[in-house]
Amino acid sequence: MRDHGGDLDRARTLYGEGDWLDLSTGINAVPYPLPDLPRHAWTALPTRADLAALEATARMAYGVGDGVGCVALAGAQAAIQLVPRLRTVGRARVVGPTYNEHAGALAAQGWEVTQVDDIEGLRGAWLGIVVNPNNPDGRLWTPEALFDLARDVGCLIVDESFADPLPKYSMVRYLGRLPESLSILVLRSFGKFYGLAGVRLGFVLGDPGTTGRLRSLAGPWAVSGPAIAAGRAALGDPVWQADSIARLTRDAARMDALAARAGWTPVGGTVLFRTYDTENAEAVQDRLARAHIWTRRFPYSKGWLRLGLPGTEADWVRLEAALQG
Amino acid sequence: MRDHGGDLDRARTLYGEGDWLDLSTGINAVPYPLPDLPRHAWTALPTRADLAALEATARMAYGVGDGVGCVALAGAQAAIQLVPRLRTVGRARVVGPTYNEHAGALAAQGWEVTQVDDIEGLRGAWLGIVVNPNNPDGRLWTPEALFDLARDVGCLIVDESFADPLPKYSMVRYLGRLPESLSILVLRSFGKFYGLAGVRLGFVLGDPGTTGRLRSLAGPWAVSGPAIAAGRAALGDPVWQADSIARLTRDAARMDALAARAGWTPVGGTVLFRTYDTENAEAVQDRLARAHIWTRRFPYSKGWLRLGLPGTEADWVRLEAALQG
Repeated sequence: MRDHGGDLDRARTLYGEGDWLDLSTGINAVPYPLPDLPRHAWTALPTRADLAALEATARMAYGVGDGVGCVALAGAQAAIQLVPRLRTVGRARVVGPTYNEHAGALAAQGWEVTQVDDIEGLRGAWLGIVVNPNNPDGRLWTPEALFDLARDVGCLIVDESFADPLPKYSMVRYLGRLPESLSILVLRSFGKFYGLAGVRLGFVLGDPGTTGRLRSLAGPWAVSGPAIAAGRAALGDPVWQADSIARLTRDAARMDALAARAGWTPVGGTVLFRTYDTENAEAVQDRLARAHIWTRRFPYSKGWLRLGLPGTEADWVRLEAALQG
Repeated sequence: MRDHGGDLDRARTLYGEGDWLDLSTGINAVPYPLPDLPRHAWTALPTRADLAALEATARMAYGVGDGVGCVALAGAQAAIQLVPRLRTVGRARVVGPTYNEHAGALAAQGWEVTQVDDIEGLRGAWLGIVVNPNNPDGRLWTPEALFDLARDVGCLIVDESFADPLPKYSMVRYLGRLPESLSILVLRSFGKFYGLAGVRLGFVLGDPGTTGRLRSLAGPWAVSGPAIAAGRAALGDPVWQADSIARLTRDAARMDALAARAGWTPVGGTVLFRTYDTENAEAVQDRLARAHIWTRRFPYSKGWLRLGLPGTEADWVRLEAALQG
């Protein structure tokens, strides 16, 4: 398994059991408050109608019409596992550094993968992948720039796993008026913004032919009943969505202030995570881990440290104390 | 999507909305009573330790040791989607008629699939598949016969989706002492016997190299947090398992008695479903559907009708009334 945030096992092995504050992921620490799920979500195979209702709710939330294909999968990761199968195996380019599963899944399925520094490096690619906003540095490209780019990429994958708080930057509104010559697929994650990463839910939006192929590759009942019920509730709640964006925006500023006091330089981020250049990430991660606060380092940077945002005032106080201690 | 049981949408379209009694599947109608799930099952990405604990519980439940590979997937169906990728695309044989997703997933991925009547027809196959006990006719082969067969099959897939009530017929105890020349994979379904088909959980047991490849093909976080929590509780509860086998055995006999009174000839089945030759399945399905009881027909048989077992006395009474009416 590749190096990821979110695997507290390693922290526990290195620093012992305890009440860990996990800031190693970009998962919203204030999850959508789940309603009671209907019994049949657990007991019965999800029906086509259940799935269609979920996908209709997702279309509304993401702002795409019926002409755009939309397929629900068991997480954005499930989409990442299937992307390598959409085209004949060849060469792919990924804008990086970024979330390492894109290159990982491609390479594991026989693709030759090159990392490029910016989206301009994707021009001419048979398969090109960009995470927008990017993880962990928060780099952001406009949908106009990506639409222009798509003309020169065989198939452009735009991973919008962290785009919920930035709807204006989403590519999705271009999907309804794509000329046939352009192939763009947008990946959306459910678990991160809604704070429900355990349920495993994500979506791919694009031309109906391609999303149909993804549905066929995933097979029937690819999304669980609890995921369908949770997704319908959360994606259909614009009030919670707006409130959460407002809160996360305030909290991201609070984290930046803490980081400034610690003398760290902002690298970038989204309102779900912040990345800083701490000069010595190993030492900072170690210091915080001794207080049972887990953060994320990156193998390609000595200084970068990524932190998710605490979800409660007590957790903020704990983080502040650990940084000052 | 291929024809399946479990899709009540079609019944609703044809016969109207209402309080449907769904006997079209082989899913236990008395599900394992779920405990309250821990919050982190919903909010956090499942850790490697969570998954390892689930798989350890599954090993105990299925009776295999550490030397046997065991990988949890999002349902036996998820395993069926991956099986075609384990070997170079070629010719596969499936003992049938049986659950149609095996041939369907293989054909969709470029395999040439032949249906054979009995396990002897698998000899010489590059990839051979048998469902044991078979769905819908309940045909059952001994593990000894399958072990002998495996010598003449490149890779033998034994789908034990309905084997929980028949542990003596499971192939799993042979997996620990397979010579390297033999390749046998056993598929297990969680949702059917435990009555929790919505959670999407299943397992593949076999040599560690192959289960490791399946794990890699499925990618990280292939099983949801709620599925891990539900699976650990249910697979670790031998008392519920034994009580349920006893109840299902009684109920299967009760269904057989009803069928005899209706003049149907037993075809076979398991204690999770019974298949009868009714001579005119279309007419019987229609009659029961008018009482909002949904059953399963098969495109290859005019007479066969499959029924799952009602879960409550009220549902039994309702079925009896509909059969007499």
